[in-house]
Amino acid sequence: MEPTKVNVPPMKDLTIDNITENTVLINSQSGDQRLAYLMERLVTHLHDFARETRLSTKEWMAALNFLVRVGQVSSDVRHEFILLSDILGLSLLVDAIDHPKPPSSTEGSVLGPFHTHDPPTIPSGSSMSSDPSGEPCLVICTITDVHHTPISNVKIDIWETDSTGHYDVQYKDMERPDGRCVMRSDERGVFWFKAIVPVPYPIPHDGPVGELLEMLGRHCWRPAHMHFMFEKEGWDHLITALYIRNDPYETSDAVFGVKQSLIVDFMKATKEEAEKYGVKEGTKVLKHHFVLVGARETEELRDRNALEAMGKLGRKVKLIDHLPVPDVD
Amino acid sequence: MEPTKVNVPPMKDLTIDNITENTVLINSQSGDQRLAYLMERLVTHLHDFARETRLSTKEWMAALNFLVRVGQVSSDVRHEFILLSDILGLSLLVDAIDHPKPPSSTEGSVLGPFHTHDPPTIPSGSSMSSDPSGEPCLVICTITDVHHTPISNVKIDIWETDSTGHYDVQYKDMERPDGRCVMRSDERGVFWFKAIVPVPYPIPHDGPVGELLEMLGRHCWRPAHMHFMFEKEGWDHLITALYIRNDPYETSDAVFGVKQSLIVDFMKATKEEAEKYGVKEGTKVLKHHFVLVGARETEELRDRNALEAMGKLGRKVKLIDHLPVPDVD
Repeated sequence: MEPTKVNVPPMKDLTIDNITENTVLINSQSGDQRLAYLMERLVTHLHDFARETRLSTKEWMAALNFLVRVGQVSSDVRHEFILLSDILGLSLLVDAIDHPKPPSSTEGSVLGPFHTHDPPTIPSGSSMSSDPSGEPCLVICTITDVHHTPISNVKIDIWETDSTGHYDVQYKDMERPDGRCVMRSDERGVFWFKAIVPVPYPIPHDGPVGELLEMLGRHCWRPAHMHFMFEKEGWDHLITALYIRNDPYETSDAVFGVKQSLIVDFMKATKEEAEKYGVKEGTKVLKHHFVLVGARETEELRDRNALEAMGKLGRKVKLIDHLPVPDVD
Repeated sequence: MEPTKVNVPPMKDLTIDNITENTVLINSQSGDQRLAYLMERLVTHLHDFARETRLSTKEWMAALNFLVRVGQVSSDVRHEFILLSDILGLSLLVDAIDHPKPPSSTEGSVLGPFHTHDPPTIPSGSSMSSDPSGEPCLVICTITDVHHTPISNVKIDIWETDSTGHYDVQYKDMERPDGRCVMRSDERGVFWFKAIVPVPYPIPHDGPVGELLEMLGRHCWRPAHMHFMFEKEGWDHLITALYIRNDPYETSDAVFGVKQSLIVDFMKATKEEAEKYGVKEGTKVLKHHFVLVGARETEELRDRNALEAMGKLGRKVKLIDHLPVPDVD
């Protein structure tokens, strides 16, 4: 490889005070305004963090070694950096920024590291868990828009742990997906299925993220919940979860996923429901109504929120592809 | 594992506006004031970064996947996170904070990802490179304190690439360390050795850091240099490098390591020198005088700088183990 042409600002004698400006400058050559803005903010915050903490070489090295381990424990079925983002509150924040919800729509929650792309598609009425030790439950849902109009043919991903608090992919000898499925809503916006009552469980804590939680004196538990993801062309992608009321971790979720509007109650199946849905009378039943928002409406809300928030921060920006970059005109 | 006792602030309904405060709160339970301060600044900067850029889910996911790859390409002989820190200017900044230099002492430079712990210890006069294609050179150094008093028995790590710009550990079939050694200064503070004239080289750019540089329109070259590390009880650990004057990358080092005071010139060995040191007349000779600073003096300077810098930032801090934490009294 031949040396390439040098066309960057002179950078000798960089110091605590001028390193940030010069790093930002050399990172601004690509012509991609969004990338340049992301790098400018990233480098500024990273350097300010080091300056404000007077970060020591020992701490810096410990942090870099920690990050190597976060990468190395990750695999196709375990994304430790998502987990790290989750326990630092970043995942919840990014979702809140990217998927703003108008009043009366269903709020979002964290994706978590255990969503997979290969679950079986099952028809309404099927069971998505084969765990015989789980407490059976029936889940009956509807999907509408904010005006109560049913939305049909939505692709719904649903996933939960087994009765011991483990996802299928956490078992080394897993043969097929379990505790997860894909469904489609019918013309009335309905989908229903049999599952097991969710249980609280610790997030994977045998890796570096678990060690960090321990150092911080934090527990690693999530309250009992069931994940849902909704996709349909023209509608804003919704990642959310339903949380079972009165869980001991309801107010201390290790990954900050709980919202008041997502806390739900189980009923008991009446005789009529038991017959209609093919379950035993008294089986726990969860009924929930999800409200999706149009993709266009979400986009407009996101743009409006972005400009308003940046205005409050005193930043003069314009939106390119709906994402802010400095407005230097 | 049994659920542990919950003793944290209530955390339902976290939003763009309250997530930071609550994450900081839950991270402050360990009783370790320094850890709590580091986490407070880290989470605040991370969240502010997301808020100021209105970071999208797609960008967030791309960043997390990038970080996984940075971890996974790392190994015992390649630390891609150090490399990432290097190209973002963080390494230089942390070194400048942690190892402040009084006037007339030798300045620091970046460690880089290729220092190893197993090089052979060689006596003065030995050769530390066996590359027959390299241009031979002679390096004659002295080590003193700021008052010109020689410092004996300093452990000096020295490492450089071969003539193709690769470190020994970059070869899969490497049999033994080459282009690196450990030496000790004699009672006059002198150490000298034979080596090859350093060449400019690209940092490893076949991994995610190389891709990032490419996206940013940055080149991946470092100007020709030779690394030095100095260790002796009672003296501040010095990591530095000497840069060969007029290198095409002198003003655009990909990892921001160059300082004016570290740029050096080669002379040619006189007849007398050639005889004295056992080299051919006219061989390139590099003579350099390193100046170490006492550990205590550096510590005092670091403390003074920290308090002064934090005062300028308007932060009320105290030092614990020489590192700042908020002074809440």
